[in-house]
Amino acid sequence: MTAMRPGGMIHGVGLGPGAQDLMSVRSDRLVRTARHVAYFRKAGRPGQARKIVEGMLRADVVEFPMEYPVTTEIPVSDPRYNDCLSAFYSRCIDHLAALASAGEDVVVLCEGDPFFYGSFMHLYTRLQTIAPVAVVPGITGMSGAWTASGAPITWGDDVLTVLMGTLPEADLVRRIRDTDALVVMKIGRHLDKLRRAVAAAGREDEAWLVEYAAMADQRVTRLCDADAITPYFSILLIHGQGRRP
Amino acid sequence: MTAMRPGGMIHGVGLGPGAQDLMSVRSDRLVRTARHVAYFRKAGRPGQARKIVEGMLRADVVEFPMEYPVTTEIPVSDPRYNDCLSAFYSRCIDHLAALASAGEDVVVLCEGDPFFYGSFMHLYTRLQTIAPVAVVPGITGMSGAWTASGAPITWGDDVLTVLMGTLPEADLVRRIRDTDALVVMKIGRHLDKLRRAVAAAGREDEAWLVEYAAMADQRVTRLCDADAITPYFSILLIHGQGRRP
Ligand SMILES: C[S@@+](CC[C@H](N)C(=O)[O-])C[C@H]1O[C@@H](n2cnc3c(N)ncnc32)[C@H](O)[C@@H]1O
Ligand SMILES: C[S@@+](CC[C@H](N)C(=O)[O-])C[C@H]1O[C@@H](n2cnc3c(N)ncnc32)[C@H](O)[C@@H]1O
Repeated sequence: MTAMRPGGMIHGVGLGPGAQDLMSVRSDRLVRTARHVAYFRKAGRPGQARKIVEGMLRADVVEFPMEYPVTTEIPVSDPRYNDCLSAFYSRCIDHLAALASAGEDVVVLCEGDPFFYGSFMHLYTRLQTIAPVAVVPGITGMSGAWTASGAPITWGDDVLTVLMGTLPEADLVRRIRDTDALVVMKIGRHLDKLRRAVAAAGREDEAWLVEYAAMADQRVTRLCDADAITPYFSILLIHGQGRRP
Repeated sequence: MTAMRPGGMIHGVGLGPGAQDLMSVRSDRLVRTARHVAYFRKAGRPGQARKIVEGMLRADVVEFPMEYPVTTEIPVSDPRYNDCLSAFYSRCIDHLAALASAGEDVVVLCEGDPFFYGSFMHLYTRLQTIAPVAVVPGITGMSGAWTASGAPITWGDDVLTVLMGTLPEADLVRRIRDTDALVVMKIGRHLDKLRRAVAAAGREDEAWLVEYAAMADQRVTRLCDADAITPYFSILLIHGQGRRP
C-alpha cells in the first residue's frame, strides 16, 4: 500500500519587466527550485517569460511550453477566437491539474505581475476549484517603463489612467484628455490611432514611448520622434505634474 | 597627496509592499551590502520601509532616518505646509549630497515603487543635478492588494483608474462611475467620503478594502463590511470584468 500523496501547488510567479534581477526574492527562489516550469509563448518563439529565467532552471527541470493556437489570424470579434483560446486553456489546465494531483508543484512563469492583464489569469480562474494556486506579484511593465523614463509617474493627488491601445479612438481621446498621468499598453498595430488620439487630446508634447523596458534593447523616445512601428513590448507614458513641495 | 575619490551613487530602492521576500533580487543585494541607508519616517515611529529590511542590514551600517517635520498638523492648503516640507527635503539632500561627494554610496529605502506616489521623488528631482542617482523599481502596494484579494484586477481592454482618496467627492463619483477597474490609495480620514462616492456611483457591491497588503496584518474585506476607520496602508479595489475567453 502506498501512502496518499498530497496534491501539488500551482504557483503563478511574477517575473517583473525583463531584467532577471528585477524578479522578487520569492520568485527567484521558486524558479530556481522548480522541478516543473510552464510558460506561454507564441509558436516558434522562445517566449519572453522563459527568456527572463534563462540560466536559472534546475538541470532536471521539466518544461511545459504552452503555445498559443491563435494570435492575430482570427479577429478578436470572431466567436471562433474565443472558442479556440478557451479550448487551448482547457488543455493547459488538464496538464497542470494532472501534475498537481500527482503531488507535483508547478511554477507558471509570468511577465510582470500575473494579475495585471496577464495570460495566467485565464488559467487561474479555471484552476481555482481544481488545485491549490498561489500567486506571487511582480514589478509591472509600466513600473519598468516609468523607471526607464527617468521621471516619476504620479505626484500628490494625480489621477493615473491605464488604457489599452486596442480601445476605439474616440474613447482614447476622451480619456487621455481627462487624466493627469497616463499609461497605454498593448500598442502594436494601434500606434497610428494612438498618435492621433494623443494629438487630438492636445498632449503630444508630454508623451513618451518606452520600448523593451528593463530589457537589453530598452529605448525611450518622445512619441513625436518614435518610429512608425513599435514592438509588442511598448508602453506610452504621460507623466503627472501634481503637487510637489 | 590623496587621490580624488569618485563620487558615490544615491540609489532609490523599491522594497515592494511589505513582505521582505517581495523586494527584487537587485534591491535585496543593494540593501544587504549598503554602508549607508536612509529612509523616511514619522517622528517617533519605526517607519515601514525600515521595518521591511529588519535583519538585512550590515553590522556596521550607518542609518539616516529622515523624520517628517509635519504630517497632519498643518493643512496641505496652507503655504507653510509646502515651505516646511521643502526646507526638510533640502536638509535631507544636503546630507545625502555630502555623503555622495565623499565617495559614499547611499541606499534610500522606498516602500513599493519609488516613482509611484513616493516620497523619494522629492529627493530625486532635487538630487539630479547634484549627484548620480539610480532607481530600482518595486512591486507596488496596489499589486500587493489585488494579489491579496485573490482576483485579477484587469482583463482584456479594461480601463484601470488609480485615484487618491484626497480628491473632492464629486470627482471621485464621476471617475468611479467611468472606469472598469479601480484602485484608490491614501484613504485614511477620507473613508466616509469614499464610501459615499462608491455608493453614488452604484458600485458598493463590487468594492473591496485591502489593509496591510503583504504584511503580517493583511486583511481583505468588502467595503460594506469594513470598519469606520482604516489604517494608512489601505487600498480600495474594484476588479475589472473585461473579456475573458
Ligand atoms: C498582456 S500585457 C502583460 C502585462 C504584464 N502582466 C505586466 O504586469 O506588465 C502585455 C503588454 O504589457 C506591456 N509591457 C509589459 N512589459 C513590458 C516591458 N518590459 N516593456 C514595455 N512594455 C511592456 C506592453 O504594452 C504589452 O503589450
Ligand atoms: C505615499 S503612497 C506610496 C505608494 C508606494 N510608493 C507604492 O508603490 O505602492 C502611500 C499609499 O499607498 C498605499 N499602500 C502602499 N503600500 C500598501 C500596502 N502594502 N497595503 C495597503 N496599502 C498600501 C496606501 O493607500 C497608502 O496610503
